[in-house]
Amino acid sequence: MTPHETIRLFTKILENLEKWMDKAGEHAKARSFEVDLLAQARLAPDQYVFAQQVQSACDQAKYTAAYLSGKPAPSHPDTEKTFAELRERIRKCTGFLAAVSEKDLAGADERKVAPPWLQGRWLRGRDYLVDLAIPNFFFHVTMAYAILRHNGVNLGKMDYIGSLPTRDA
Amino acid sequence: MTPHETIRLFTKILENLEKWMDKAGEHAKARSFEVDLLAQARLAPDQYVFAQQVQSACDQAKYTAAYLSGKPAPSHPDTEKTFAELRERIRKCTGFLAAVSEKDLAGADERKVAPPWLQGRWLRGRDYLVDLAIPNFFFHVTMAYAILRHNGVNLGKMDYIGSLPTRDA
Repeated sequence: MTPHETIRLFTKILENLEKWMDKAGEHAKARSFEVDLLAQARLAPDQYVFAQQVQSACDQAKYTAAYLSGKPAPSHPDTEKTFAELRERIRKCTGFLAAVSEKDLAGADERKVAPPWLQGRWLRGRDYLVDLAIPNFFFHVTMAYAILRHNGVNLGKMDYIGSLPTRDA
Repeated sequence: MTPHETIRLFTKILENLEKWMDKAGEHAKARSFEVDLLAQARLAPDQYVFAQQVQSACDQAKYTAAYLSGKPAPSHPDTEKTFAELRERIRKCTGFLAAVSEKDLAGADERKVAPPWLQGRWLRGRDYLVDLAIPNFFFHVTMAYAILRHNGVNLGKMDYIGSLPTRDA
């Protein structure tokens, strides 16, 4: 999986996340509650709420594309409170991802990735992708999924995986 | 991330999972309950329990290594009920992963991957890895983590990510 394929996979999963949010909307409507309540739901008292899981997944995807291409990451402040605002956040993120081409990612393996939280230390681009970006992106999207699932939203595995390029010959 | 790096990443995350289980054991001891109760915990009534999440994560890792190398997958029946048995399952899995070399995975991209549940259809090895194996593996390990976290186990993000090959010069 090249860095560009990783960015495409992140994009696909973020698009799937919007579909989970559609199902959350249907569930809220059927039960007559406001879907935005789910933006503040969490699985443990000291854990991020749904909105923060979405913001974190978007940020991990955004920074992967930025760090590995050398393009500056656009600023997306964590201000979203509603599902509508979270959808906007996802689309700003996937818009940025779409603007990062395979060519922009040439040399990604050898880039020096030094996010502020590493406090001066750094990771080789390839190590950043494998050991941090991929697990951390899936951590946050799966936690978002788990929060909805725990709150009764009718989700199944294929909602998570999305479309598969199967062949018959 | 090559197929071999993916298998190494799956191994690392499965080793991390054993450390989450250590923390679950400490939590159970502190609260005077039997840790094996957590093997049957779940986040939603129609969702897999912790034991099944571990079995599914192991199977996804095992089948990735098998399908992409052409080696036969060893049979690991889903009989585990206790944490001790689940640890055994993880180690059988990582033992098989360790036996699949980079050379065994040459040509993985072009292999025809036809798991029974695709009912005659198939995926190109590379598509299987990107669109199915990676998301599905992380789905199950994150769900296992989420179940423990929801039940009060003292886990944090770095328990999930594990060691990072950071550099200082």
